[in-house]
Amino acid sequence: MADQIVLPSPADFHVHVRQGAMCELVTPHVALGGIRTAYVMPNLVPPLTKTENVLAYKAELERIAPSVEWLMTLYLHPEVTPDEIRKAAKAGVKGVKSYPRGVTTNSSSGIEDYGLYYPVFKAMEEEGMVLNLHGEVPSDDEKNISILNAEKHFLEHLRKIAAAFPNLRIVLEHATTAEAVECVASLPANVACTFTAHHLWLTIDAVAPQPHHFCKPIAKEPRDRAALQNAIKSGNPKFFLGSDSAPHPSASKTPSISDSGELHSCAAGCYTSPFLVPLVATLLEGFGAIDKLAGFVSDHGRAFYKVPAKEGSSVTLRRPAVPNQVPVRLGEGALEVVPFWAGKELAWEIVNN
Amino acid sequence: MADQIVLPSPADFHVHVRQGAMCELVTPHVALGGIRTAYVMPNLVPPLTKTENVLAYKAELERIAPSVEWLMTLYLHPEVTPDEIRKAAKAGVKGVKSYPRGVTTNSSSGIEDYGLYYPVFKAMEEEGMVLNLHGEVPSDDEKNISILNAEKHFLEHLRKIAAAFPNLRIVLEHATTAEAVECVASLPANVACTFTAHHLWLTIDAVAPQPHHFCKPIAKEPRDRAALQNAIKSGNPKFFLGSDSAPHPSASKTPSISDSGELHSCAAGCYTSPFLVPLVATLLEGFGAIDKLAGFVSDHGRAFYKVPAKEGSSVTLRRPAVPNQVPVRLGEGALEVVPFWAGKELAWEIVNN
Repeated sequence: MADQIVLPSPADFHVHVRQGAMCELVTPHVALGGIRTAYVMPNLVPPLTKTENVLAYKAELERIAPSVEWLMTLYLHPEVTPDEIRKAAKAGVKGVKSYPRGVTTNSSSGIEDYGLYYPVFKAMEEEGMVLNLHGEVPSDDEKNISILNAEKHFLEHLRKIAAAFPNLRIVLEHATTAEAVECVASLPANVACTFTAHHLWLTIDAVAPQPHHFCKPIAKEPRDRAALQNAIKSGNPKFFLGSDSAPHPSASKTPSISDSGELHSCAAGCYTSPFLVPLVATLLEGFGAIDKLAGFVSDHGRAFYKVPAKEGSSVTLRRPAVPNQVPVRLGEGALEVVPFWAGKELAWEIVNN
Repeated sequence: MADQIVLPSPADFHVHVRQGAMCELVTPHVALGGIRTAYVMPNLVPPLTKTENVLAYKAELERIAPSVEWLMTLYLHPEVTPDEIRKAAKAGVKGVKSYPRGVTTNSSSGIEDYGLYYPVFKAMEEEGMVLNLHGEVPSDDEKNISILNAEKHFLEHLRKIAAAFPNLRIVLEHATTAEAVECVASLPANVACTFTAHHLWLTIDAVAPQPHHFCKPIAKEPRDRAALQNAIKSGNPKFFLGSDSAPHPSASKTPSISDSGELHSCAAGCYTSPFLVPLVATLLEGFGAIDKLAGFVSDHGRAFYKVPAKEGSSVTLRRPAVPNQVPVRLGEGALEVVPFWAGKELAWEIVNN
């Protein structure tokens, strides 16, 4: 067993760094977790539907954490016109994120009909922008659509968009099912797929009793987790890391009842940024894929996004001298976040952080 | 729409009333919820594997709530021999509850191989005792068994036991899947099935973000909930109420982290006892089955268990003059319980409670 691994410039192609005080807390965690390039989600309040707002947000992130290369996205929305796409592309915005309406945190402005956005997708294809898809359809009792099969039902939309735009780079984000893995593998090279760290470990059994494991899409069955792990083991470059690391104050992860008697649900999201690369190394080693780590956390995503590693940005991992335990709390007061893997040990640590 | 419903002696054929201080708190709630006959689960600490312990527990319940008819069960376990069965039957114990090992609250003494208990089942068949099955197999990653399909995988055990003991009355408890409903409907009249109140309303979408909705078996897809509702609508006497009402202190329904950094999962169970009959009436009315209420909450279960309604034990429901809201908390301090339906309105109330 190797005691040291040198990784060429790890990248996280799906991360939430929020706004305000939470942004100040979590943005520095991205570098701390061994990430050199971060692809930032636009589901702020209000969502980032304008190029100038994306650029202002990018400046904010560069101020807080100048060592990270911040790659930015727009939030797909009626305000995002083909003209806005050309403007954004010119300004260096890399992609556009699509949220089906209402399925996750701050997605109430999400879309309902992909066909409406074909002119936007066309402009993105021409400008070389990437389309990032939250791959779930909204739940619908009449159609027996629930959070368990919402991703499977989305795949027909993925196939349609991919067929209509053969030169548009498309990423199915945070895939959680065997069907999604098979679908992406079967589609042309313009379609890729991110996996989170937490979906490489969770199944529904660990999610149902534990709000800190609740995220969207929800972790599914053991066979689904195995499909994700096997996609990494295969070395297929379509599959790479997008952590979907999403901090929520621990109060939002606790059931509560308002004075008027309203029972509040827990927020969806797992937070992995502060120790992301060591966690991914620990998980991949756990299922016999440590040899695929560099491809998964760096090479595959960088090739797909055409964002080469910068000189001198490698990250070295070593086995910790004493067991390295993930903290159970980050921040404090209204900002306290309980991370994924809280209290568990990491088999790897970063040498130079 | 009727403004009043007279129900012949409602019965709950599956209820947890716990031990100690919690027992003192929740046992009176059974009568408060409109229940005249309650079939009590034996998963105490330690489990009730001896007739004398069951009788002592029964005396305790009669002391706390003398108006209720308490029907008792043994916990299936190697200590429960055919001789113990005959002793229990003679003492008036009605049934034996089987928990697969480790699948729910206090089930670590549960069974792993049903074949081992065939001599016990034979004695139960001869003595006219009822076998109550928690119908889930333990999760197993290798076999892709999770809490989502644990009930479906159990049905082969149900079919085998039913075939081997054609005169043994068997109840599949708290069924949650379309497959379970179909299976029970297809088996002979000695096999029946309870439904909880909460599974008539929940689906997985409402469970995943809300620990107060987490129970075992977990609520499944919309099509499963529809199958339960349709079984009630059909009027088939195999299907009747077993609330599985299971109080947990709200601290056990909240994710917590110990000082040593251990993340604690939330306990499984929904608590419906204090307003059970009005809740079931509200739910059945909601899916157009109010005309099946008397069968579901009284006649079907009583016929199967051969426990006729007692003279003068009817319960009258009426529409509340002002909206009747379920309290958001019961008990206090370490005993505080947040009930199911907390803060929501009930369309019916009990006249004479």
